[in-house]
Amino acid sequence: MDPQALNRSRDLLLGSTHPLLVTHVAPDGDALGSLLGLGWMLRSLGREPMLACSDALPRQLDFLPGFDEVTVQPTGCFDLLVSLDCSDPQRMGAAGNLPEVEGLPLLNIDHHVTNLRFGTVNVVDAAAVSTTQILYRLRPLLGVELDERIATCLLTGLVTDTRGFRTSNVTPEVLRTAAGLMEAGASLARISRSGLDRRPLGAARMWGAALSRMEVADGLAWTTLPFAEQRVLGYDPQGDTGLPNMMVNIEAVQMAAVFTEQQDGRVEVGLRAAPGFDVAGVALSLGGGGHKQAAGCLLPGPLGQAQQRVLEMLRAELARQRAAAGNDGWHPQPG
Amino acid sequence: MDPQALNRSRDLLLGSTHPLLVTHVAPDGDALGSLLGLGWMLRSLGREPMLACSDALPRQLDFLPGFDEVTVQPTGCFDLLVSLDCSDPQRMGAAGNLPEVEGLPLLNIDHHVTNLRFGTVNVVDAAAVSTTQILYRLRPLLGVELDERIATCLLTGLVTDTRGFRTSNVTPEVLRTAAGLMEAGASLARISRSGLDRRPLGAARMWGAALSRMEVADGLAWTTLPFAEQRVLGYDPQGDTGLPNMMVNIEAVQMAAVFTEQQDGRVEVGLRAAPGFDVAGVALSLGGGGHKQAAGCLLPGPLGQAQQRVLEMLRAELARQRAAAGNDGWHPQPG
Repeated sequence: MDPQALNRSRDLLLGSTHPLLVTHVAPDGDALGSLLGLGWMLRSLGREPMLACSDALPRQLDFLPGFDEVTVQPTGCFDLLVSLDCSDPQRMGAAGNLPEVEGLPLLNIDHHVTNLRFGTVNVVDAAAVSTTQILYRLRPLLGVELDERIATCLLTGLVTDTRGFRTSNVTPEVLRTAAGLMEAGASLARISRSGLDRRPLGAARMWGAALSRMEVADGLAWTTLPFAEQRVLGYDPQGDTGLPNMMVNIEAVQMAAVFTEQQDGRVEVGLRAAPGFDVAGVALSLGGGGHKQAAGCLLPGPLGQAQQRVLEMLRAELARQRAAAGNDGWHPQPG
Repeated sequence: MDPQALNRSRDLLLGSTHPLLVTHVAPDGDALGSLLGLGWMLRSLGREPMLACSDALPRQLDFLPGFDEVTVQPTGCFDLLVSLDCSDPQRMGAAGNLPEVEGLPLLNIDHHVTNLRFGTVNVVDAAAVSTTQILYRLRPLLGVELDERIATCLLTGLVTDTRGFRTSNVTPEVLRTAAGLMEAGASLARISRSGLDRRPLGAARMWGAALSRMEVADGLAWTTLPFAEQRVLGYDPQGDTGLPNMMVNIEAVQMAAVFTEQQDGRVEVGLRAAPGFDVAGVALSLGGGGHKQAAGCLLPGPLGQAQQRVLEMLRAELARQRAAAGNDGWHPQPG
């Protein structure tokens, strides 16, 4: 990360009195943690930020301090636009396209490797495990004291984006950052339980049905979540990312796909790859995106057709990657 | 923890050339991590420890260095018996009852609050999240250098007993210990994946069936794993503790029970409690044991009868605990 960018971001933030902070649509723990965390940091400096997200917030994150103060449609006078955890400006949704923000300086704070550097100033570090980890580094430059609220928001991004310190990008520094945030008052147990593990009954029922009909063949696991069944079981797919993670952790599975039918008939595809494999390319070529190990896309229905299309690509890609790695799939790499 | 006990344990270990190290039956990640970790520590000092466990080792821990060198029936001449992660001497199984160990000094290293302090020297710290955390503190006293093998074994105990740093006893010190072990060469991502997340296909299928027929009523969730179905789905219950954890994390669930029928007809009962609730008492009164949040017992069959017996006790206990806490169960405590 460019140290000059950090200094320029400090100048932008300290020079603003009414910044508009925007996080991405379909917000997750790092999106909201970075939005609310920077909000509390700026408030502690006497600034009056407005916090916006163009989508509804996932209920399981309602323990975050300030959860109820995020607005869907911001209005007012702003002197700075801050984009948090967005790899491109479209990810800000409608809130990033208001007439009120036209011509404003744009501060882009993000950790996605695919970030388009669309800001006036770009604080982008793909080695950071979360956008909140970048904010943790920015905090002393702003002269902000850590308190329980800030620490809770920042630790939530760290915990959720690493699925509880499980991803391969977790370094000793990340664990020491988490230790410091705990000492400032954040409850790791509560964040883990609420942000990662707590699940509505409908999700547990949906997992039961989806795992019962899951198909596994030649290193590939997949299942479907038809919309009618979601209704019957009381399942809300928003924010539920655990099922494909569980499937890719099955022994001898290298890639996993979950096909979630939406009310409008389109199909959300969640893709996962075991260590040493990569599903980002398939997602990208289908108009989606993500990381090597976790990616996704949104396809037209019907469900069966989307499934067939993706599975064909995954089979070909898996064969290609196995050949390239000299890995026949029956002796998966340690990981 | 008594600092004198630490010094006396150092003297016992350094004074021994052929110690027999024994961990508990039905070994988990902390049992094997502490057994193998202390084994490597003593070997680095030129000692010749023998490592024993009276039960078969769970396959998902086969990444641990030295996994293949653990013996079921130790023979030879020993000058010290070390019990690791055992709350009472019976937990050592047959290996703790050999004629060869009669009359030997017994070093008892453990972190269970229920430890009976049955050793000549007892290094017992119930505040430690794992027995390997105690070994991490003992290491510098023994003059042992951390290396990748030792670090991998110790981090495995830390990670598995805290379910990936999720339990409420995880302190900033635990995270800093983990950071230090990573710096010594342990791979947190690999340990998390292999020791916590990797799961045989049969287990995923069994979870699907068990979650599909799971019953949830008045804060209590339960399900059954009949032996015949385990056979059909290719499920081996050994080492699979994730299902009751998942069930107790369902919203509005305060206690969860999984009834696993064994081949001999007996029923293994896995119990879990949400934060603020306690299943240790029920397990204890049924001849089992464990912690507040996670406990278990083994009951005579048939399955339906064991289930009825436990559910009645859990219902009564849940009502009692709600009344005592002024918690009606519909407004669960944050956690």
